[in-house]
Amino acid sequence: MTTTQQNPTNCQQDACCTPTPTVLRCPAKSRDLARRMKALSDPTRLQLLQLVAAHPGGRACICDLTTPLGVTQPTVSHHMKLLAESGFVTRERQGKWTYYTMRPEALDDLGQRLANLNHPCS
Amino acid sequence: MTTTQQNPTNCQQDACCTPTPTVLRCPAKSRDLARRMKALSDPTRLQLLQLVAAHPGGRACICDLTTPLGVTQPTVSHHMKLLAESGFVTRERQGKWTYYTMRPEALDDLGQRLANLNHPCS
Repeated sequence: MTTTQQNPTNCQQDACCTPTPTVLRCPAKSRDLARRMKALSDPTRLQLLQLVAAHPGGRACICDLTTPLGVTQPTVSHHMKLLAESGFVTRERQGKWTYYTMRPEALDDLGQRLANLNHPCS
Repeated sequence: MTTTQQNPTNCQQDACCTPTPTVLRCPAKSRDLARRMKALSDPTRLQLLQLVAAHPGGRACICDLTTPLGVTQPTVSHHMKLLAESGFVTRERQGKWTYYTMRPEALDDLGQRLANLNHPCS
């Protein structure tokens, strides 16, 4: 492990690609990216996310998410909590129901970071 | 579970968004996407991938991947096998060494599919 890896807060101070690509200089970046990828590494969560996106305004009540997937409300709640913690949706309580709203910019940002993996200095 | 979910080979025959978004009509798609996301849900694999990208021509010998990350060759081999199985790199044996080559189009495709999650008909 390099000195830089032991001190991820130095990420922005190093010259690009000298001597190592960003992910090696900044392990915190790869940990954050991996965490968000993991949130999307489950088929049910991907289905829930697109199901929310399919609702008007990209906003859906938890009560509308159980039947299409044939899963229980606690299961939906668990998956949506993980998606919210990784920033892909926001959560809002209204009375007895929880509503979820898509954050399209989170998917766009993740896609950009994936593309950046092709470029070792990004 | 709907009839369509039980028969994913019908994916392309359904009218768009009638009655459900693609991921619900085609569970095989979300399973495939989740599998590829999982391959990238590990910080070490992300670091290895960008390390390969940093080598000339996006091609690196396994012998060049161990020292920068401080991991053993069997560990690198394990992670690179998962990346290869999900299409992010190709593997080529030359004498005693294995060489890995980036497949940038795999990351671009994944980024596009992520963006598509914002659009329930894509």
